[in-house]
Amino acid sequence: MQIMDDLYQNGISTILATPSGARPVWLDNKYPDVMRVDANGVRNRHGGRHNHCMSSEKYREKVRIIDRKLAETVGDHPGLIMWHVSNEFGGECFCDKCKAKFREYLRERFHNNIDELNHEWWTTFWSARYSDFEEIDPPYNNGQTAIMGLNLEWKRFTSRNYSDYLSVEIDAIREHSKNASIPITTNFMGRYYGIDYRVLAKKIDAIAWDSYPAFHNDHETYRDTMMSAAFDNAVMRGMKKDRPFLLMESAPGLVNWMPFNKLKRPGVHEQFAIQTIACGADSIQYFQMRKSRGAAEQFHGAVIDHIGTNDTRIFKEVKKTGETLRKLSEVEGSIKNNEAAIIFEWDNWWAIDGAGAFGGSTKKYDSICRDYWVKLMEFGVEADVISTEDELDRYKLIIVPMLFMLKDDIAKELTDFVEKGGTILVTYISGYVNENCLCYQGGFPGDGLKKLLGVISEEIDTLYPSDNNGIHVNYKGIDKIIEVRDYAEILRVDDAQILGRYTEDFYKDTAAITCRCHGNGKAYYQAARCSIDGLSEFIKGLLTESGIEVKDIPAGIEYHKRIGKEATYEFYLNVTSDIIELTNVEGINLMTGNRISGSINLGGREYLVLKNKL
Amino acid sequence: MQIMDDLYQNGISTILATPSGARPVWLDNKYPDVMRVDANGVRNRHGGRHNHCMSSEKYREKVRIIDRKLAETVGDHPGLIMWHVSNEFGGECFCDKCKAKFREYLRERFHNNIDELNHEWWTTFWSARYSDFEEIDPPYNNGQTAIMGLNLEWKRFTSRNYSDYLSVEIDAIREHSKNASIPITTNFMGRYYGIDYRVLAKKIDAIAWDSYPAFHNDHETYRDTMMSAAFDNAVMRGMKKDRPFLLMESAPGLVNWMPFNKLKRPGVHEQFAIQTIACGADSIQYFQMRKSRGAAEQFHGAVIDHIGTNDTRIFKEVKKTGETLRKLSEVEGSIKNNEAAIIFEWDNWWAIDGAGAFGGSTKKYDSICRDYWVKLMEFGVEADVISTEDELDRYKLIIVPMLFMLKDDIAKELTDFVEKGGTILVTYISGYVNENCLCYQGGFPGDGLKKLLGVISEEIDTLYPSDNNGIHVNYKGIDKIIEVRDYAEILRVDDAQILGRYTEDFYKDTAAITCRCHGNGKAYYQAARCSIDGLSEFIKGLLTESGIEVKDIPAGIEYHKRIGKEATYEFYLNVTSDIIELTNVEGINLMTGNRISGSINLGGREYLVLKNKL
Amino acid sequence: MQIMDDLYQNGISTILATPSGARPVWLDNKYPDVMRVDANGVRNRHGGRHNHCMSSEKYREKVRIIDRKLAETVGDHPGLIMWHVSNEFGGECFCDKCKAKFREYLRERFHNNIDELNHEWWTTFWSARYSDFEEIDPPYNNGQTAIMGLNLEWKRFTSRNYSDYLSVEIDAIREHSKNASIPITTNFMGRYYGIDYRVLAKKIDAIAWDSYPAFHNDHETYRDTMMSAAFDNAVMRGMKKDRPFLLMESAPGLVNWMPFNKLKRPGVHEQFAIQTIACGADSIQYFQMRKSRGAAEQFHGAVIDHIGTNDTRIFKEVKKTGETLRKLSEVEGSIKNNEAAIIFEWDNWWAIDGAGAFGGSTKKYDSICRDYWVKLMEFGVEADVISTEDELDRYKLIIVPMLFMLKDDIAKELTDFVEKGGTILVTYISGYVNENCLCYQGGFPGDGLKKLLGVISEEIDTLYPSDNNGIHVNYKGIDKIIEVRDYAEILRVDDAQILGRYTEDFYKDTAAITCRCHGNGKAYYQAARCSIDGLSEFIKGLLTESGIEVKDIPAGIEYHKRIGKEATYEFYLNVTSDIIELTNVEGINLMTGNRISGSINLGGREYLVLKNKL
Repeated sequence: MQIMDDLYQNGISTILATPSGARPVWLDNKYPDVMRVDANGVRNRHGGRHNHCMSSEKYREKVRIIDRKLAETVGDHPGLIMWHVSNEFGGECFCDKCKAKFREYLRERFHNNIDELNHEWWTTFWSARYSDFEEIDPPYNNGQTAIMGLNLEWKRFTSRNYSDYLSVEIDAIREHSKNASIPITTNFMGRYYGIDYRVLAKKIDAIAWDSYPAFHNDHETYRDTMMSAAFDNAVMRGMKKDRPFLLMESAPGLVNWMPFNKLKRPGVHEQFAIQTIACGADSIQYFQMRKSRGAAEQFHGAVIDHIGTNDTRIFKEVKKTGETLRKLSEVEGSIKNNEAAIIFEWDNWWAIDGAGAFGGSTKKYDSICRDYWVKLMEFGVEADVISTEDELDRYKLIIVPMLFMLKDDIAKELTDFVEKGGTILVTYISGYVNENCLCYQGGFPGDGLKKLLGVISEEIDTLYPSDNNGIHVNYKGIDKIIEVRDYAEILRVDDAQILGRYTEDFYKDTAAITCRCHGNGKAYYQAARCSIDGLSEFIKGLLTESGIEVKDIPAGIEYHKRIGKEATYEFYLNVTSDIIELTNVEGINLMTGNRISGSINLGGREYLVLKNKL
Repeated sequence: MQIMDDLYQNGISTILATPSGARPVWLDNKYPDVMRVDANGVRNRHGGRHNHCMSSEKYREKVRIIDRKLAETVGDHPGLIMWHVSNEFGGECFCDKCKAKFREYLRERFHNNIDELNHEWWTTFWSARYSDFEEIDPPYNNGQTAIMGLNLEWKRFTSRNYSDYLSVEIDAIREHSKNASIPITTNFMGRYYGIDYRVLAKKIDAIAWDSYPAFHNDHETYRDTMMSAAFDNAVMRGMKKDRPFLLMESAPGLVNWMPFNKLKRPGVHEQFAIQTIACGADSIQYFQMRKSRGAAEQFHGAVIDHIGTNDTRIFKEVKKTGETLRKLSEVEGSIKNNEAAIIFEWDNWWAIDGAGAFGGSTKKYDSICRDYWVKLMEFGVEADVISTEDELDRYKLIIVPMLFMLKDDIAKELTDFVEKGGTILVTYISGYVNENCLCYQGGFPGDGLKKLLGVISEEIDTLYPSDNNGIHVNYKGIDKIIEVRDYAEILRVDDAQILGRYTEDFYKDTAAITCRCHGNGKAYYQAARCSIDGLSEFIKGLLTESGIEVKDIPAGIEYHKRIGKEATYEFYLNVTSDIIELTNVEGINLMTGNRISGSINLGGREYLVLKNKL
Repeated sequence: MQIMDDLYQNGISTILATPSGARPVWLDNKYPDVMRVDANGVRNRHGGRHNHCMSSEKYREKVRIIDRKLAETVGDHPGLIMWHVSNEFGGECFCDKCKAKFREYLRERFHNNIDELNHEWWTTFWSARYSDFEEIDPPYNNGQTAIMGLNLEWKRFTSRNYSDYLSVEIDAIREHSKNASIPITTNFMGRYYGIDYRVLAKKIDAIAWDSYPAFHNDHETYRDTMMSAAFDNAVMRGMKKDRPFLLMESAPGLVNWMPFNKLKRPGVHEQFAIQTIACGADSIQYFQMRKSRGAAEQFHGAVIDHIGTNDTRIFKEVKKTGETLRKLSEVEGSIKNNEAAIIFEWDNWWAIDGAGAFGGSTKKYDSICRDYWVKLMEFGVEADVISTEDELDRYKLIIVPMLFMLKDDIAKELTDFVEKGGTILVTYISGYVNENCLCYQGGFPGDGLKKLLGVISEEIDTLYPSDNNGIHVNYKGIDKIIEVRDYAEILRVDDAQILGRYTEDFYKDTAAITCRCHGNGKAYYQAARCSIDGLSEFIKGLLTESGIEVKDIPAGIEYHKRIGKEATYEFYLNVTSDIIELTNVEGINLMTGNRISGSINLGGREYLVLKNKL
């Protein structure tokens, strides 16, 4: 309280976290069932963080008490601008209580009908039929791990159990705060695999997340690291498209838990901060203000180092970044109005990874989605990252990479979208299974999607990393061979134009890229994993055809746009070390207040923010 | 029953499996001790397959009941041509019941004499003496894993416990079937490491196995994959040499559990089927008829795909293969009469792998045996793969690779074999230990084998993968240097002709390949691991000397021969993608019915089956 | 007893080991708590060796009984020259008794003040505060592993618990031996990571250790293997600098537990034995006399092989080595009087490895220490390997590599050392934390060391293995660029001369190597990890400056010196395969008795021992 007062009196607001992310030792000793049980069924001991059982009634009770006290004490503090529940949810619990809740969840999901579950999970195979929901265990490591549907539902349940737990804390805060209008968030972790964040996002008022890119690593360029971070921002922002998000945690210097913890080069932190704003954030926070003298994160980058002074390189960079952000303050509240979208879904990711086929190390669903997103960025097009539950009609182009799991009605929605004039691109490994991981019959992609596309995928060839193939694309003036890796489906073309054909192997000359006109739109199918750069002209064509403006962005420039009530804000980031000339730019340079018109040079790792009245 | 009726009325017979391979969940819940205990002593939970305890009385009781019902119901069904017990035995159980049976087994093995066990296991070392059989545990991961004899006997016991369990099912079927003449089998898995299949083979009427080569992979040629599959067939067939075996499971398309699951190229399935027949099989079966919509093998190749139609590439290939096999129907029942043999034994494999010396990653016993087998195939010589318990006198040449464990009397039998005129080739790492893993004293190879060979192996140099050496072979017109890798023994030559000498290192010019004439035969010793191709002329010489016909097989052709009552059947498989000319072939082409005499071209992946009257 | 009698009557003395290293099965069955509990809290089963609980009262009781019997029976045997307690201590135990002793240890360490512990372990971070010592668990795998101080103290406690256990055996022997003057030892294992041997060394009368270099491997030269073994000898010898140590175990041939177990080439065993003597040993022992017929070490090199004869290469080499050693008998008792020292500490090693920063695979503390030691050897300077507890004043030069953990008063002692005229070289990653792993504030290296050196390390850049940088050194006639890998600190230079500057990256031209004069000495700082060969001239300069004689040792020659009461003994080992000429050598060749003066050629793997009167 004293701290919040002091901060407030110095013009600093507080986002206050509830303390449930780290349990005290006495609590674990007194109530062992607040600790998790691992995938072998063994209860953890006290230690680390994040290992409390989400289902534990005792833990919920204790957390309610402390949250109530916090809410009662500082809930109407004038410096309090947001609540932050717990910390970086993650992991699973296999305790008996979670097991019981899982069974409840399954009863609800399958209408209390064990036959329905048996059908959807296809348990007749290997004699795995259940006669009662009470017979179903979580997928213990040393238990049943061979039923796709079970594995999937366990992950879905875990997300929902986090959501359920999150409600407990939110309710406690709301109920006991004198100021119930203060928004509540929790901190996500980008493409964290274990939780479908969309389930949790519905419960909170704003999206917040922790971003720790491995800058200057040995496996990608700086530009790639930046683009990957931008995609993560898009995934996070996409969960609440019409309001800005928060960068809750970032490190101004090194982090201390990576295989190699390299220093951020000068200017990188600032450019990273500007990029995050450009991607739709309204705040840049740090973990941590000052390095902790001991324990697990004693070397994790902080604003103030162990030396304790304000003259370090890092401190000065943070200070400069703060001054820069102040100049951008009018950007606050502005949003995006994207015309292209890419479907990316957590349960599809889990379903692909759980599928017993394809290549063990080459599925890479999330990075394939990212690659399409980055490719659009090269044309100045920032896409929304959406789920199949989102409204489709606000977009002109939708890219559907590897939608292995095609849920009910989605094929129909995509068909309607095209009929009304939209353009879609569907790729290999789409429409194989329904939402319970049961295969579609009658030809992939199932559930009517094959009709929209006019093709059936009869077989899929999984290539070894040393294999490759090619697609000869020859239409509308494009005449080139695109490299194929990892996956190549063999198509039957029922009713579609063939735009590209394989160049090698026994399926040489068969269709690899097709297009079918439907209603007022077009449905494209890409049957093989292609070099994303090889697809450039093809994707540019999709944009043009669907009526999305293609901007002429120089290589090495990352471009973003935010739209405020009265002005637009365009961001140009030079993600190389070289000087790049921008041409035909126009607007007020927010850093200087000067109007720019025509050309301007951007130095390595520099950026430009241009404002134009609406 | 209805299914069997329908099949029968459509001319399709049934091989009926007992259902014990997959336990229902209610059984596990009601009788937890039917589930296995793992190597840490922790009982499994319900899940997957194949994890029932082989010793469980309760499980045996339940299996007996269901087997009896099956036998009583369909045991005399006219469509039933074979019983198939359980499925792909594998794994181990460390429960108390298995422990007790293990102790019983040890009592019997060591004549109820704990001193004998202590001597053979050399337990004085590290104070490991047992004072009673009841003190002996299985080699739990967190227990006693440092006694070679214990580890070995545990594996032997596991094989015997499977055999014991197999008897329970066989007895139940025999006792309750109205037609007790129906043969019984179970499905093996080629060179599966965990079970000495020869122990189980004695219990069944025919050998059946499941063959899933990884075709078109990134580490060997198609020809090598085929040859490896052929060797597996030889290992399987070798357990019942005088009757054909069954291919119980194969996938016409991809499989779904490999690191990369590539499509079988056109024609490969058919050539694979012909090869299996050529190797001595009388049937080609599939797992699975139709892809399962869900669960663990939903993408495992099947005759009918999820599309459900009969116009897929795979379906058509299976259909064509069926037509081809019909043309070969007269081959049924024919066998082989091989003159060469290679010794390959499971307990020797285990003993080598358990030995605390040599190179951790370079032992490769089974693939070394395969390499010799494949080398003989290049000269048109198909060898039997035998154990030291088999009759040796039917052969002219016996190759003995890495027979680390030399059991009682085997040295004498090999000596007798040579004395009567046989030729043997013994390699490095032979005759080090007796059947309990106790070292022979007085010089390796022990137990008199050194006398037959006229050499003693004083030391063995284990090379790093980056090391090599050479052997200069210079005799009978051969004058070449053969590359040496991995292992090089340093010999004392007492009474043998030196055919090759090392070219490098401190043992340069010492003996590396020797020959000693004994009685009417010859005993060769190869002291180092050589490039198998470097050994070509040497091995060709062994064949010629021992009176085995060397055929002039073009490179890229795989040759097999089966012998029926009235005719021989010769198989030529082109395992390349190029056209190869066969010369001097003679006989009826079974595919066309035409007589061939002289030359014929075989296209890539084509084959020829020639019949000649006896 | 009979054996000792026989040996004694044949002129062979006995070092007698107590049998506690290997527990009999009956003991484990009767008293399960003599067995250890693993890091998951699960009790081991009987097996292997070395897994008894160091805290078990029952085990101590039983060991006392048998030690007493041994002492009473043979304690005054005339052939008994030394006692050897147990065998190769190693591993940890997490049982309740060890946990209780750990808590006692912590109470003592932190003055029974839980607040002190909480402060030093910085437990406020992540809510890890303890309210009582009874709440503290060992760092179980599934418990608290995120507190640096806890992890460190657990390792320190384990060393002290070994020491405590060692006392039990020593006391039992001393109390019950009629001849209490017989010295007692135990066998160490060189740079074994798990125990701070210095804690145990205080309890024993002589250092003994087991040396098994992997000669002729695929990752270093023979010379490097020899030098690494020499460094190990220095580490061992350094624990009792003023008396010779024993080589308790070595294998004359191969060992049988390495990934690849290559033969020792002819002459290597002899040169290795001479080297060990040269390093300060007074004995060369073997494990084992004769290969054990069975069990875990049946192929481990021995004097007598399974063949059982005395005409093997190995037997003859051992015999020759024995004859050689006899010629060196007057060297017995001579010691070393080294002028340079390198600080190497176990708890610093653990602290670095536990630190959550830097590169996961590039810390390599022990091999960095070794590299400096070897570099000095190239100038004919053998350094002592010391701890910060050792007396510093006997040295002229002290090298302090990566002294991450700077204990209380050490900065002051180093400052005093320099003040009095000593030279020190401190490297990157020094002085970050105190003895409890709590970070120093106010700038690294902390606790005043930054004042001695005149620099502050503001940031550390952790490089990927594919990164590099350089240091341009330009002073006193040296003008070269030294390669930098892995770590580069960015310095603030307050009061020091800059000898080298970075050549690349954003910290190009900033200080990388500095020197500050203090009192009568000099304090050097090396801020980055440099190619050790690149540092040659720099290190040679340190030697010259500090008044240590630099000898002109030809490349490929390893040089050692021992000092007896009346003479010095110089050892020259040719660790190449080529002939090398030694010039300006002088003295009596102990192998021949002849005086040498001037030049002499040493053949590959040959050696020369020269005596000169004092």
